[in-house]
Amino acid sequence: MGFWKSFFGSPDTASTRTQFEGDIVQGMNDASSEMFRDRADVNTRILFSTERDIDLYELEELCDAVGWSRRPMRKVRKALQHSFLVASVWQVRGNSRRLIGFARATSDHAFNATIWDVVVHPEFQGKGLGKGLMKYMIKKLRSEDISNITLFADPHVVKFYQRMGFMADPEGIKGMFWYPD
Amino acid sequence: MGFWKSFFGSPDTASTRTQFEGDIVQGMNDASSEMFRDRADVNTRILFSTERDIDLYELEELCDAVGWSRRPMRKVRKALQHSFLVASVWQVRGNSRRLIGFARATSDHAFNATIWDVVVHPEFQGKGLGKGLMKYMIKKLRSEDISNITLFADPHVVKFYQRMGFMADPEGIKGMFWYPD
Repeated sequence: MGFWKSFFGSPDTASTRTQFEGDIVQGMNDASSEMFRDRADVNTRILFSTERDIDLYELEELCDAVGWSRRPMRKVRKALQHSFLVASVWQVRGNSRRLIGFARATSDHAFNATIWDVVVHPEFQGKGLGKGLMKYMIKKLRSEDISNITLFADPHVVKFYQRMGFMADPEGIKGMFWYPD
Repeated sequence: MGFWKSFFGSPDTASTRTQFEGDIVQGMNDASSEMFRDRADVNTRILFSTERDIDLYELEELCDAVGWSRRPMRKVRKALQHSFLVASVWQVRGNSRRLIGFARATSDHAFNATIWDVVVHPEFQGKGLGKGLMKYMIKKLRSEDISNITLFADPHVVKFYQRMGFMADPEGIKGMFWYPD
């Protein structure tokens, strides 16, 4: 219950504690996976995992669903291989499962990590899964002794990340981008 | 001359084109090193390199010189090992050389890179070396097909990076930080 509480237990998230509220059911394949019971549907479980064997077509489908522009699969594969952390969220029913969330982080394995490509399938948004995914990422990065976790947030999600404890432009530090001409 | 010009050739850097203006002398140990003649002192060369066998005590001395707080050498070593790109600047005189600049980048090897720990020794600041180092980083990252180059800039260097072509908060994207409580 402790971990579950740390995911969804704060008062300000009460409104998102509907469909996926529940207890940890079991650790899955490895120590990096955590499964939650869905109280609204006893046949459904939600799995958070750091396993890396993600079907790239399934990932593309998830990214399509939120309207991201497609990227070459060859490069996506390479990016996943070289990300420090790859986190995924699965809806599990019996023996089948569906990829419904994803995020990854680059890192120097020592000081800094940068989170990229945070996505939750539209059908599953507004249920606290994005918050759960970010808490899961932070927990995993902290367990690797990474203290400086960074990201670049689009304007409409800045408040979401602020509620997760992220600060925008702390001490006037500016996120900056260089693109090819 | 082409590469040199791309380093220091733009009009807005004329004032910094004093001590280190010169031509490429030779590629060094590998294709990733570039040596410049110092026109103010014919016995001195400036070397830009991506080799990774940097003496960590020498790096610590460089970081001390700009007043950065010390970090555990064990973690610095790990961070260098797991950085995608490590760039250094050396003052070379005869057979001896001195570390006078440093920067590194994390990356997913495919889409994104994030530049960290950009430092030029105070004695060598104001001579265009910081700009040269950043151009060198960008060139190396571009040669690896990385198109999204990011960094987090302290307020007093935001203008410097803007002159290098970096944009602060493009389209309202915010750099965000999470620190442990």
